[in-house]
Amino acid sequence: MSPDGGTVDRTRIRVRYAETDQMGRAHHMQYLAWFELGRTELMRAAGVAYSALEREGIRLPVSNVQIEYSGAAAYDDLVEIRTWVSDVRSRTVTFSYSATRVEDGDEIATGSTRLVCANEDGRARRLPPHLVTVLQELLEGTERDVTP
Amino acid sequence: MSPDGGTVDRTRIRVRYAETDQMGRAHHMQYLAWFELGRTELMRAAGVAYSALEREGIRLPVSNVQIEYSGAAAYDDLVEIRTWVSDVRSRTVTFSYSATRVEDGDEIATGSTRLVCANEDGRARRLPPHLVTVLQELLEGTERDVTP
Amino acid sequence: MSPDGGTVDRTRIRVRYAETDQMGRAHHMQYLAWFELGRTELMRAAGVAYSALEREGIRLPVSNVQIEYSGAAAYDDLVEIRTWVSDVRSRTVTFSYSATRVEDGDEIATGSTRLVCANEDGRARRLPPHLVTVLQELLEGTERDVTP
Amino acid sequence: MSPDGGTVDRTRIRVRYAETDQMGRAHHMQYLAWFELGRTELMRAAGVAYSALEREGIRLPVSNVQIEYSGAAAYDDLVEIRTWVSDVRSRTVTFSYSATRVEDGDEIATGSTRLVCANEDGRARRLPPHLVTVLQELLEGTERDVTP
Repeated sequence: MSPDGGTVDRTRIRVRYAETDQMGRAHHMQYLAWFELGRTELMRAAGVAYSALEREGIRLPVSNVQIEYSGAAAYDDLVEIRTWVSDVRSRTVTFSYSATRVEDGDEIATGSTRLVCANEDGRARRLPPHLVTVLQELLEGTERDVTP
Repeated sequence: MSPDGGTVDRTRIRVRYAETDQMGRAHHMQYLAWFELGRTELMRAAGVAYSALEREGIRLPVSNVQIEYSGAAAYDDLVEIRTWVSDVRSRTVTFSYSATRVEDGDEIATGSTRLVCANEDGRARRLPPHLVTVLQELLEGTERDVTP
Repeated sequence: MSPDGGTVDRTRIRVRYAETDQMGRAHHMQYLAWFELGRTELMRAAGVAYSALEREGIRLPVSNVQIEYSGAAAYDDLVEIRTWVSDVRSRTVTFSYSATRVEDGDEIATGSTRLVCANEDGRARRLPPHLVTVLQELLEGTERDVTP
Repeated sequence: MSPDGGTVDRTRIRVRYAETDQMGRAHHMQYLAWFELGRTELMRAAGVAYSALEREGIRLPVSNVQIEYSGAAAYDDLVEIRTWVSDVRSRTVTFSYSATRVEDGDEIATGSTRLVCANEDGRARRLPPHLVTVLQELLEGTERDVTP
């Protein structure tokens, strides 16, 4: 179960050489790509392909990012991203994340991203009802390990 | 002058095709690379080359990120990043940012990153006195336009 | 003048921290983003905005990449990318590049990318006549320094 | 077996939203990150951790890149990268790659990267004997599917 009680996706990534910087660790911006991967997988596990939403004309641009780093990931480290829905509003949804180094179980970062629903032309709109239903179920869900 | 009263760097970047995503805008993670560019330039303007700090054995990994997006930047847009120091502590320094689309002057994002001082081995340490002095001057400074 | 006799764009970039890897140099993939920036600027200088081409329904995906690295660029290095058109066919155009470290004038990489003309649906098509005209002029042009 | 007769690694990646560009496909530079992941996995399967080589003071910067793109990968596509050693010299090793979209089996790109052996200070040197042995075995090997 997530800290917020919802369904949790666990996705693992291996830190790519291209993701490191000269400090010898994954650059802090890469976590946003990993978090995005986590929410893609969480939504896929709930039966919603983000690419299908886009074909319906729905966009979910990120409107807020918060990350707190408590550790670092090195090249070739296996990192587990846990992702869950932490808030659903009429026009926004917030996903929360925890990144853990698999080898020693250390949490290296936590974060959240708020997404706002928009039309293809970029104007804000309400989340479509079928998406709200799925997001609410994820928010209130019981934990499932959806790692393939 | 910055919203916090300190010295402001203004650095302009042109959105690269490689930075766009399929929503047709700069991907939200790219702002962290732009902010990093901004603080490099702010510190250079204050006489501190970050690469020189690294040669002294000082590392400044990012420990916290906050970004609020209020707009978007398209491929080939010119974006101005304003950067200033918003907080200096014994072991951390916080930089704040505003990103504006140059063409229409719209602010598209604001954010901050907190950096923690560390040795080469990654252990937290106090900021070196000469760096604190420079950062304090930037915090209390009068605005200079340091765009080349 | 370019090695091939055509018009040359000179665009300068400063190596971003986010572009370095743990070898302490710009990661080899970043050169493709820099080359892309170079051809955007070359075409802009010739009066063709790539974003305008896309609005006309023209796409120019990359179909071939060749890069030879003879040096490296460090964080904060200023790098000049020289870009010119080296071949124009009915359906493809090839851009060539040279990357030089500004501080010491050392050439650190040369390369080329071949782009193929496509419709919005991805099907290959002939380059539009107005674009062929511009590309031919660039191919046969006299060198202009178009750095802003 | 690889086209060159050697041991082949098969690594699968899922195209990240952050890897797409506004053409709606994975940006052509991302293939270099995927190829790098492929050679990391090939070497790991052969018992050589690239991170261990770096701790020995060995660097393997890329000195040449060639990629031919025959298709494209969309967001969320599963792509299989096949990687094998195609040439071993006293100071260089060349890896070759084929990228295939898993859903329909279409090959979307082939490529190669030549790596040159260097000391920590960047000077070219001979490949260490234990590495040459492993690379030769990979070059002459029988195909193993090393996908986890």
